Amino acid sequence: MTFSFEITARAPSTRARAGILHTAHGDIETPAFMAVATQAAVKALTPEDLQSIGVQLIIANTYHLALRPGSEKIAELGGLHAFMNWQHPLMTDSGGFQVFSLGAAIRDGVGKIADIFPAEQAGAREENFPSQSKGVPLCKIDDDGVTFRSHLDGTLMRLDPERSITIQHQLGADLILAFDECTSPLDSYEYTRAAMERTHRWAERCLEQHARARRDDQSLFGIVQGGAYRDLREESARVIGGLPFDGFAIGGSLGKSKKEMHAVLDWTIPRLPDSKPRHLLGIGELQDIVEGVARGVDLFDCASPTRWARNGALLVAREIAENAEQRIAISNARYALDPAPIDPTCDCYTCQHFSRAYLHHLHRARELSYYRLASLHNLRFMMRWMRDLRAAIRAGTFSVQRLADR
Amino acid sequence: MTFSFEITARAPSTRARAGILHTAHGDIETPAFMAVATQAAVKALTPEDLQSIGVQLIIANTYHLALRPGSEKIAELGGLHAFMNWQHPLMTDSGGFQVFSLGAAIRDGVGKIADIFPAEQAGAREENFPSQSKGVPLCKIDDDGVTFRSHLDGTLMRLDPERSITIQHQLGADLILAFDECTSPLDSYEYTRAAMERTHRWAERCLEQHARARRDDQSLFGIVQGGAYRDLREESARVIGGLPFDGFAIGGSLGKSKKEMHAVLDWTIPRLPDSKPRHLLGIGELQDIVEGVARGVDLFDCASPTRWARNGALLVAREIAENAEQRIAISNARYALDPAPIDPTCDCYTCQHFSRAYLHHLHRARELSYYRLASLHNLRFMMRWMRDLRAAIRAGTFSVQRLADR
Repeated sequence: MTFSFEITARAPSTRARAGILHTAHGDIETPAFMAVATQAAVKALTPEDLQSIGVQLIIANTYHLALRPGSEKIAELGGLHAFMNWQHPLMTDSGGFQVFSLGAAIRDGVGKIADIFPAEQAGAREENFPSQSKGVPLCKIDDDGVTFRSHLDGTLMRLDPERSITIQHQLGADLILAFDECTSPLDSYEYTRAAMERTHRWAERCLEQHARARRDDQSLFGIVQGGAYRDLREESARVIGGLPFDGFAIGGSLGKSKKEMHAVLDWTIPRLPDSKPRHLLGIGELQDIVEGVARGVDLFDCASPTRWARNGALLVAREIAENAEQRIAISNARYALDPAPIDPTCDCYTCQHFSRAYLHHLHRARELSYYRLASLHNLRFMMRWMRDLRAAIRAGTFSVQRLADR
Repeated sequence: MTFSFEITARAPSTRARAGILHTAHGDIETPAFMAVATQAAVKALTPEDLQSIGVQLIIANTYHLALRPGSEKIAELGGLHAFMNWQHPLMTDSGGFQVFSLGAAIRDGVGKIADIFPAEQAGAREENFPSQSKGVPLCKIDDDGVTFRSHLDGTLMRLDPERSITIQHQLGADLILAFDECTSPLDSYEYTRAAMERTHRWAERCLEQHARARRDDQSLFGIVQGGAYRDLREESARVIGGLPFDGFAIGGSLGKSKKEMHAVLDWTIPRLPDSKPRHLLGIGELQDIVEGVARGVDLFDCASPTRWARNGALLVAREIAENAEQRIAISNARYALDPAPIDPTCDCYTCQHFSRAYLHHLHRARELSYYRLASLHNLRFMMRWMRDLRAAIRAGTFSVQRLADR
């Protein structure tokens, strides 16, 4: 077994901890933020770019890669590390989130639909779906698995715990995730309980499938569900936390407010084994990360920082931000003649070489180089944010308030 | 005067020559191919990328930059070199080609309309023009200059020799071009003659305006016109070649076939001063460059190599090409499982790190990183092509046939 987790420091009077995740492709200092490489590429960036800004770990998408180019093809080409030439730690999700989002997110108008249908893919909207999928539910769940239609061409497909793990074995990431059912914040208590119990049965099937493959270089994380219901989250944390996973992810609906999200973490994390890493799925707002770290989260992933970048929202130090989210809108006319870098405190290639005025121009002209320069900056900002959190934990100076004020 | 041109080698039995252009921002080894930075950015690439693949000189677009962000703004920000952080040789065109293309190219359905309306700018098609420009001619020429409507917002604008040179002074490129009238291959002899004579009068006005500014760091090139008519090309080469320009460009219609283009060069180049550099505007096909070099051309610019890249047409060595143009279509299913680089003989970052299979996937998924990786490769191919031409001239082995066979 090449995987292990070492806790190297703890922050007093919080659950925050710093540590090192050892994987077959290298170490990850935690707490860590991973860049999202949905289709085997972090949008607009190369592996060299990611290395240059200190990205330690990236997460690719089982659903998207199974559809295109196909996990068998990637396996034939030597696995996902070789395919995308990323020789560093790599995670894949199970595809559960995307498959259920096809159904629930469209039905209820909730969820991160943009994760499935990026704005760049002009054709990927429900009304543009192939005619054979019109009026047909996009996803149908049974106790064994889920049947769904590809958002690319309407092809009928099937995913279940065994198939998800097999695909993830073909992809070959260092960290892989159990196949779960992700519920919507609008689902009832009864439905959320039924889905959670299904997720627990699927968790055991994922472990069995993973054990059959005997791959020492891949570690399997379980996923806690239960929506924003206290007894369900506590039960799920106990059940999933009691299974022999290498780490744990917190998935599904985190409620309708920051307060509910904090409550979900407070119900869940104390019931997970202290010695294993914890991953809060899909969260990437700066203050949410601080609150998550304070509650004992070790890993974060989110497509937002790179999506913000593409949309013109660039992360900056608190002193120069226009808002609590610490983002400036580079399209604003006030930057048209601004010779300063995006953030004078930033050490990224973009801030070292270009002015806000130039980025404003590139963004307005929709120049392709804009997307890379902006993504480099926002991801570098996230890496510095995480580095500062780790340093504060190690120095014993970590506190939510102190970091909220920086 | 910081500009000079030194001829260092000549190829026997052709007009090919190798040399060095000295500018305020560095030297350019000729024959050279310049990358096109229409809107102050080579599409999908950064200055660092361009440096890494050996690009010596780039050409930006007066028409586009005057419209957005405006040449006054760029001047206020320290000029185009500073604005785009390109501290190497830089050229700007005069805007003539784009302005006349707005009229003639749309009227006659000829010309490189894609240079004005890149496919990426979905809104930039005639039918999407602002309503105030519907039914109004896009460009109206008089003997003094030209009135036209912005393709961005329909604003009425005016360009004449003095204004074009003033804008180019504000931008501050090392090499600038005279404002000419670019005719269509469908224009009559009479119209082509009238336009050529207008171009000659404008050439003198450009020289006068340039002399008034007394900028020692900018060199002005004249443009020969005359369409595919022998007596007009010979007359234009004599008139423009007799004016005190620092170099000469060959513009306008080069006829309807390769043969006509070669004839235009054979009529023109022997009548231009041997000691000054010659630029063939807008040509970038591999064999056309070889034929141009053999006829005495020193400089080339063309948006095609980067546009081919974005469209999936990647340049390769002749041995592995699918066609005489030496381009493979990366979208072809045959590359879906191909572990080889685009071109095994290529030393670019893309070929050193990624397979055709991965690029095929990125292209199909319309991943933003595809555009950079493909553009890097095609431009590096052009740089190697030019390097080999220069080496052959210096070694005394240059011949059109030998290079056509490589």
